[in-house]
Amino acid sequence: MTAEEQAENPTACVLIIGNEVLSGRTQDQNLRFLASELGALGIPVREARVIPDVEEMIVSTINEVRAKYTHVFTTGGIGPTHDDITSECVAKAFGVPWEPHPVAWKRLAEYYASQNPPGDFNAARQRMATMPRGAVLIENEATIAPGFSIGNVHVLAGVPRIMQAMFRALAPRLARGRPVVSATVHADGIFEGQIAAALAEVQRDFPMLEIGSYPYFRPPPVRGGVALVAKGTDADAVARAAEAMARVIAAAGGEPREGEPAPEP
Amino acid sequence: MTAEEQAENPTACVLIIGNEVLSGRTQDQNLRFLASELGALGIPVREARVIPDVEEMIVSTINEVRAKYTHVFTTGGIGPTHDDITSECVAKAFGVPWEPHPVAWKRLAEYYASQNPPGDFNAARQRMATMPRGAVLIENEATIAPGFSIGNVHVLAGVPRIMQAMFRALAPRLARGRPVVSATVHADGIFEGQIAAALAEVQRDFPMLEIGSYPYFRPPPVRGGVALVAKGTDADAVARAAEAMARVIAAAGGEPREGEPAPEP
Repeated sequence: MTAEEQAENPTACVLIIGNEVLSGRTQDQNLRFLASELGALGIPVREARVIPDVEEMIVSTINEVRAKYTHVFTTGGIGPTHDDITSECVAKAFGVPWEPHPVAWKRLAEYYASQNPPGDFNAARQRMATMPRGAVLIENEATIAPGFSIGNVHVLAGVPRIMQAMFRALAPRLARGRPVVSATVHADGIFEGQIAAALAEVQRDFPMLEIGSYPYFRPPPVRGGVALVAKGTDADAVARAAEAMARVIAAAGGEPREGEPAPEP
Repeated sequence: MTAEEQAENPTACVLIIGNEVLSGRTQDQNLRFLASELGALGIPVREARVIPDVEEMIVSTINEVRAKYTHVFTTGGIGPTHDDITSECVAKAFGVPWEPHPVAWKRLAEYYASQNPPGDFNAARQRMATMPRGAVLIENEATIAPGFSIGNVHVLAGVPRIMQAMFRALAPRLARGRPVVSATVHADGIFEGQIAAALAEVQRDFPMLEIGSYPYFRPPPVRGGVALVAKGTDADAVARAAEAMARVIAAAGGEPREGEPAPEP
């Protein structure tokens, strides 16, 4: 993303909150989803951080990144257990009380009362209806417990299916930028070192785009190769850069093909 | 990880460098590997960041995190193309020249000369043998191009297979802490909200451990449930916490079982 694009598009930071991602127990799947969706909305993700369930770390990180980026999306830490502290940390970061949200509270109370047998709307579950003062609910189709937005911080679940439902509910409220589009040209049997100089010229010719080069590896007899990606908000420039990248590959003796290489078998 | 453990164990930060991860094109696989391996070495990962191929961002982030953590592991951006700028950014961060590394240079020159037909050790490929002054090579079995360490920063490839080979070569050089061990107890059909209060007591009883709760979801007729994880460097405490977590599940009417729940079908 060039400075020019940063200036014209809103930006995003993703905060993945959870010991389980930092310990290697859990493979994060939320960054890739949010990055793709936000790119398509013209709100490119400029940074992501994975931080533990530690209050001072969450509070200071939120305050740092909400000042730097147009939007901050957090995932994780909004369930009912003792290690779910994201919501109260967001309240601390904004310096507002953490208190029952009347709408969420009523909804959860009614939900547990309606279960057969009735569930207990206990202190743990009440935490899921307790939010920073001023929070705007993010409803979702997957669970009764909502996420919320406060200022430019959007607090989403960690479970991918629930996070995605929350994001779909939130997305229409976000002011969009110019969508980030990309084109990929790849060629089997070409090495990065053969084309690097010519590819750098393509980057110089298209300063408004990100030109990326990604080698891929395949077990013989299939050969690995290189995937070249042009990305940016200027769709016409992306198309022209893709043509230039195809010429780079052809000049190195490769057979340029559009689209991603076949997935690793 | 408690403050006590942080004090006794070295700490790690993982920096994932690459536009392709922030755009959603690529699913990062390196954090999970490094987190698991480093945890087993007693060097728990305390934070991870995903940042773009932007010089000022890489330089400032490296300088920030190398002051905070015992070790920093970077992945990505050490290939031959114009967007591979990690190595020169590390030199800038340390304020040292970025210059040919005699051993790496000789090895790459010989490698390309030995190919049939001989490869061109061109300017792009020479970049892979150019390093911050004082860099210590990290050899690997997967490629001829090495990673390197400088100070407490370890610069690894982005391609998972190559990164892993570099890490295996590097690991014996790292001073180990007490290994982080964990135990998981899970139960189908138990909801977090039923056990949150009792689980918080387990956390209070084992302040030296991280006690985590992770709901899981399964399509009917299989029921979802909750996985409870105790983690820390005190293996005896982990075992006792696992027993306490099993009692929490049994008291809620569940059938506690050791180990992770079956993977989602």
